[in-house]
Amino acid sequence: LHPVYAGMPVTIFEHMSGLARELGAINLGQGFPDEAPPPALLEALSRAAAERSHQYPPMAGIPELRRAVAGFYAWTQGLEVGAESVIVTSGATEAVACAILAAVAPGDEVLLFSPAYDAYAPLIRRAGGVPVFVPLSPPHWRYDEAAIVAAVTPRTRALVLNDPLNPTGTVAADTELAMIASLCVRHDLIAICDEVWENVRFDGRRHRSLLALPGMARRTIKIGSAGKIFGATGWKVGWMVAAPDMAAVLARAHQFLTFTTAPMLQWAVAQGLEDPALAAGCTARWAETRGVLIEALGRRGFTVLDTTATWFTCIDLAASGIALDDRTFSDRAVREAGVASIPLSALWEGDAAPEGIVRLCHCKPEAMLLEAMDRLVRWR
Amino acid sequence: LHPVYAGMPVTIFEHMSGLARELGAINLGQGFPDEAPPPALLEALSRAAAERSHQYPPMAGIPELRRAVAGFYAWTQGLEVGAESVIVTSGATEAVACAILAAVAPGDEVLLFSPAYDAYAPLIRRAGGVPVFVPLSPPHWRYDEAAIVAAVTPRTRALVLNDPLNPTGTVAADTELAMIASLCVRHDLIAICDEVWENVRFDGRRHRSLLALPGMARRTIKIGSAGKIFGATGWKVGWMVAAPDMAAVLARAHQFLTFTTAPMLQWAVAQGLEDPALAAGCTARWAETRGVLIEALGRRGFTVLDTTATWFTCIDLAASGIALDDRTFSDRAVREAGVASIPLSALWEGDAAPEGIVRLCHCKPEAMLLEAMDRLVRWR
Ligand SMILES: CSCCC(=O)C(=O)O
Ligand SMILES: CSCCC(=O)C(=O)O
Repeated sequence: LHPVYAGMPVTIFEHMSGLARELGAINLGQGFPDEAPPPALLEALSRAAAERSHQYPPMAGIPELRRAVAGFYAWTQGLEVGAESVIVTSGATEAVACAILAAVAPGDEVLLFSPAYDAYAPLIRRAGGVPVFVPLSPPHWRYDEAAIVAAVTPRTRALVLNDPLNPTGTVAADTELAMIASLCVRHDLIAICDEVWENVRFDGRRHRSLLALPGMARRTIKIGSAGKIFGATGWKVGWMVAAPDMAAVLARAHQFLTFTTAPMLQWAVAQGLEDPALAAGCTARWAETRGVLIEALGRRGFTVLDTTATWFTCIDLAASGIALDDRTFSDRAVREAGVASIPLSALWEGDAAPEGIVRLCHCKPEAMLLEAMDRLVRWR
Repeated sequence: LHPVYAGMPVTIFEHMSGLARELGAINLGQGFPDEAPPPALLEALSRAAAERSHQYPPMAGIPELRRAVAGFYAWTQGLEVGAESVIVTSGATEAVACAILAAVAPGDEVLLFSPAYDAYAPLIRRAGGVPVFVPLSPPHWRYDEAAIVAAVTPRTRALVLNDPLNPTGTVAADTELAMIASLCVRHDLIAICDEVWENVRFDGRRHRSLLALPGMARRTIKIGSAGKIFGATGWKVGWMVAAPDMAAVLARAHQFLTFTTAPMLQWAVAQGLEDPALAAGCTARWAETRGVLIEALGRRGFTVLDTTATWFTCIDLAASGIALDDRTFSDRAVREAGVASIPLSALWEGDAAPEGIVRLCHCKPEAMLLEAMDRLVRWR
């Protein structure tokens, strides 16, 4: 089978969740809430399952959802995009696959940043492209213009930006976004923007999409996720947003990846996006549990890195007085303490991986977070 | 964007369904039942949505479904495969994409047969491979050993077999399967077997999978679909079955295409597969409506080709006294008669496309089928 896959391990998320299931550990590894999605969303799902068709919906998504996504971006981000710009996918992973398979041809170089979500590089390679990583440095994970410029070559075709950034929980500064946008324009790059965490921000600021910046509307593929917005990671409803002519081509790639997505899930998400309070309520709830985790970590002598977004909080092991590298910590913590986490270096390609940072998922019930902290302290 | 997609139309299925929606035509084009899936399946879905997790299930599928698929094949086909051989996908289209991206490397030639489901060739090209079509001839669509052997080169890496075959509704003979299997063994080919219609057979015979033939177990990727088995095309639950070590690699491709599939749908399908009567009941119902369509076509002077499987019946236009090619017929019938169909040549690559065959979907309520026939007769 193809060498990209034949030598590949399962994702760190699946690996850690598998260990957690097997060992009965508290799973603060893979990002998902333990609480149910909002009742209104579940009611919309039951209604759709009872009343609506169970057959193929339109390939690019049901009109209600395409309109609802456009509407959601209008009031949460002031973006003006039409429903025809929205292509619904079976989760944001499909959107990433679709965007990369459509944008990257053999020999193309694609810029991306370490740490990076683990799907990007294998998909770029399978598309025939060459991933070129520019490292971000802890603890602030800033985008270094000189390093980015130095990585651009005449073969550079696209750039992948994940903002807010998983696993660090940080957000690009406006000046950084402007710098990246002008670089894309200057070098005629396609920007694949994985913005699945756009609505999971705790700084009270509006998300700014690269898509909204000068010159970017016709070269940006913006990716979003209902699973992240509503804490329903198993629903696997995501989307791509792009200029209509680009969206039409992306839909051609999508039609041969999954063709379409279950209509009852699409319809429920459409209902959910139309109620402004629902998404905000989810984020407000995660702000609470995040506060609990950060406070509990601090009280127990763990040093956390600054974050403003995502479901994740990162611990600095050395500053917390833990003399283990991140992989050893994660592997021993799940087995010996009964707490699963994600070692940041598992999401790093290229030299100089920071090896002292571990990611914890904070969108969990308070009691679970506190029990996990107690376990870590007892074990440590 | 990538030339494979940039020049591509939407699928003929989406195109025809779009026209049917727009024009209010009866849609006998894209294959889907108009009736709801079995009540027991819908009840299982409600139960799963009410009681089970809405978060990420295991990446390769929930254990209940992987076991249920293996069990279903044991009693419907006498196949012995373990649950670890089953990788659940977001519909069979994802399974096809996954299998092709995993099996085909740049420069590989892949054998396939015309007519062919429209996803295969673009995916082979996007994977860097070269589709090599061997035509089947109407009206019996037999596999010609000499033509297949002549198409094999040292670069041939894989073969795609769709059996039962969409759009023709025919099934490969046992001798043809044996011939194809021995060719795969002799030339060390991977067989990608799209068997989504395996349970939609009207000849009372057990489906025989290439996977079960001598030498094929370790080189076959068998693809199945809950949407076809239960008439729930919008659910988008499919799977790949392969030897455990091959399945493990296929799962690596899957983890970066959709990662996983909604757990409530997986669980409901698992329940459905465990009740032998449910799938059989669906096929029995389609046998009824198929009989109605074939009888109604005959009574109205249409000549149909022999079929034994799938949701489709093909009309021979010339023999029916209709002096139009298939594309003209389909295009005019949807606009002027209000009946959508699929022209067979839209699913043909290579020379010598038969241009006088149109596919109708028969898994529709009797009244709808009869009304469609009346419309065609009035228009004709
Ligand atoms: C698809 S599993 C990974 C989920 C996730 O976004 C994370 O844990 O980072
Ligand atoms: C994914 S749309 C096509 C459905 C189908 O199998 C057909 O109509 O042939």
